[in-house]
Amino acid sequence: MTPSQDTTTTSPWHLAQRCARMNPSVIREILKLTELPGVRSLAGGLPSADTFPVEAMRDAAARVLADTPREALQYAASEGFGPLREWVSAQMTAAGLDAPAERILITNGSQQGLDLIGKVMLDEGSTVAVETPTYLGALQAFTPNQPVFAAVECDRDGPLADGIARLPRGTRFMYVLPNFQNPTGRVVPAARRDEIVAAAQRAGVPLVEDNPYGDLWYDQAPPRPLASRWAEGTLYLGSFSKVLAPGLRLGYMVCPQPLFSKVLQAKQAADLHTGSFTQRVVHQVIRDGFLAQHIPTIRDRYRVQRDAMAAALRAHLPAGSEWQAPSGGMFFWVRLPEGCDAMALLPKAVEAGVAYVPGAAFFAENADVRTLRLSFVTLAPADIEDAVAKLGGVLKTHLADRSPVAA
Amino acid sequence: MTPSQDTTTTSPWHLAQRCARMNPSVIREILKLTELPGVRSLAGGLPSADTFPVEAMRDAAARVLADTPREALQYAASEGFGPLREWVSAQMTAAGLDAPAERILITNGSQQGLDLIGKVMLDEGSTVAVETPTYLGALQAFTPNQPVFAAVECDRDGPLADGIARLPRGTRFMYVLPNFQNPTGRVVPAARRDEIVAAAQRAGVPLVEDNPYGDLWYDQAPPRPLASRWAEGTLYLGSFSKVLAPGLRLGYMVCPQPLFSKVLQAKQAADLHTGSFTQRVVHQVIRDGFLAQHIPTIRDRYRVQRDAMAAALRAHLPAGSEWQAPSGGMFFWVRLPEGCDAMALLPKAVEAGVAYVPGAAFFAENADVRTLRLSFVTLAPADIEDAVAKLGGVLKTHLADRSPVAA
Repeated sequence: MTPSQDTTTTSPWHLAQRCARMNPSVIREILKLTELPGVRSLAGGLPSADTFPVEAMRDAAARVLADTPREALQYAASEGFGPLREWVSAQMTAAGLDAPAERILITNGSQQGLDLIGKVMLDEGSTVAVETPTYLGALQAFTPNQPVFAAVECDRDGPLADGIARLPRGTRFMYVLPNFQNPTGRVVPAARRDEIVAAAQRAGVPLVEDNPYGDLWYDQAPPRPLASRWAEGTLYLGSFSKVLAPGLRLGYMVCPQPLFSKVLQAKQAADLHTGSFTQRVVHQVIRDGFLAQHIPTIRDRYRVQRDAMAAALRAHLPAGSEWQAPSGGMFFWVRLPEGCDAMALLPKAVEAGVAYVPGAAFFAENADVRTLRLSFVTLAPADIEDAVAKLGGVLKTHLADRSPVAA
Repeated sequence: MTPSQDTTTTSPWHLAQRCARMNPSVIREILKLTELPGVRSLAGGLPSADTFPVEAMRDAAARVLADTPREALQYAASEGFGPLREWVSAQMTAAGLDAPAERILITNGSQQGLDLIGKVMLDEGSTVAVETPTYLGALQAFTPNQPVFAAVECDRDGPLADGIARLPRGTRFMYVLPNFQNPTGRVVPAARRDEIVAAAQRAGVPLVEDNPYGDLWYDQAPPRPLASRWAEGTLYLGSFSKVLAPGLRLGYMVCPQPLFSKVLQAKQAADLHTGSFTQRVVHQVIRDGFLAQHIPTIRDRYRVQRDAMAAALRAHLPAGSEWQAPSGGMFFWVRLPEGCDAMALLPKAVEAGVAYVPGAAFFAENADVRTLRLSFVTLAPADIEDAVAKLGGVLKTHLADRSPVAA
């Protein structure tokens, strides 16, 4: 018998229902475009590689492989490397969280934290509350569990308490990114944080607080975390991606007690544990206070770039464009004048040599097609100026072409 | 308003239904026991740290951080590092697979491959076929999707074609580990592979082939993969854990065309991509033929340990115990005499200074409580002899205590 003779021409593979809702990331597809030569990308949220602590990494990698090579290369605990968990615990406790090391889980970036939370907390049809707009990667991480997204109304200061009060009963959690949000760059002020927590407590909706950008402040440090205001009702996510290097894929979760064991089981089932070598190298880099010197150098760099983008936007964007310079993080959020669809204009922009992310992808519902996200952390100031000038040119040409005179 | 005053005493967290089926890993709990001082562990599947290529890793890490530090620390493609995918493609093509680089996905160990497959292919209530017994980690990876497991009858040569023929219509896939299976150590002969493929084709059940141990053969190389016999109907998983080091958490999938884009989207949503630094370091280690020299040294070491365990089992296990020396991999699978429950005996064994994994956890249904799994890769031959002697002592005491004379 020759098995291949029995092969049917139809595929034997049958996809899960959830696949129908899993679509290629718009950002991902756009990033491919931006790899074309001659395109200046304001699209991706790529930290400047100039900030990566290469020397420290090299020394740490050599040290780890000299001192503890067997442990660094062996299977390890699903919870993560003990001393790294202790380090996170100390940092988070100093930030006001209830964060003993035994409730800290090391993850492959905070993106994996979102995946694990979705697994542990979402059934098909469960409601998840998100900001308007919200981080696209969170929508992608939760979607495989087939939840229903409830977009909470937001203003410049973040989610409105009234919106939280109106959430459906049984909403599993609200996902919030209070510091220099991706994509809007907004920071939630202290008073609003108290209002959000109070509303969430009254509604019985716990919070998932994502804080990848909190250390990247350029004017003043953000208010203390939501988790410091409602310890038992807030799961907190942190990351080394923006203060060390994103390619390491290293983040962490501070889990409330009722969740830790299930999140840990989900982590074990997902990939056993985060890489031992990477965890030990990062711990070696940061153990003796490295970040206290390193992070201010990142802030100094990005502050200049933020200011360069603010100046360029003022100089080049057409009248009727709206934005607010962020006080931290990585992004400007721009609303274009009436008649501009950021997605429709993207091909023209790429043709002109500049790329951005259309804002529509960041909305769980009722997308605002006039919005777009610009990153100021990847390019140097002169390149930011050049890229924004090109963007301004594309927008002005478009608006002129569609003006009554041209029609 | 002070938010904390509104705090209710009940937890606001509500777990997903799937959590009811996610339980602490028996193996994980046992591994904690085996960390007690004085316990010789035959339980964990920990490769010998003596096999880890520490020098090569040190050189490679230094080289990567000298040559391409910015790329090694930056966000990267979800598919994985291009040259590493090319390397896998070349290896797998040489093994007879249809494995172009564009259908290879780099994962955090092959465990993550199992997680992604479950996400993309399983709905609640979907049938997944598994071997009897099967790899516990696969059961754990698939369980969050709430499938129904169908245990296919197996003999010493692996799954029986008749069992595959009887699978329910619409079975999403069958998970098979043909080379030196965890936990049984069995290898599926070539003729049985053809029978499995033919039966699966007739039944319309695609295959997920997991091959972490294929390179660890001590007598002769295993037959060529199932994927080489049914390319379009087999998804193949490979790993660097057993030929380089498990703590790196690096594996790969060779996806049939209809699955690749969805698996890639699931990967992106799960953690964006596998760590760039780790991928580049591993590629640097293996790019110039390192494994061709390295793997034979692992084989030589483990062959001696396998033989030591075979001799120790013959010398120390009570009459009525059954096992078969494996021709590769990491494990002996032992069936104890009647009246022995491996789980119930474990505390006595640990007290006597030896640990193993009770076999029951590896069965999707109808667990055989007389079975247990012994790893021969972690301990040196003298320690294996000592540990098996202790195990034999515990078993003989137990059998003597329950014999009619003692009763």
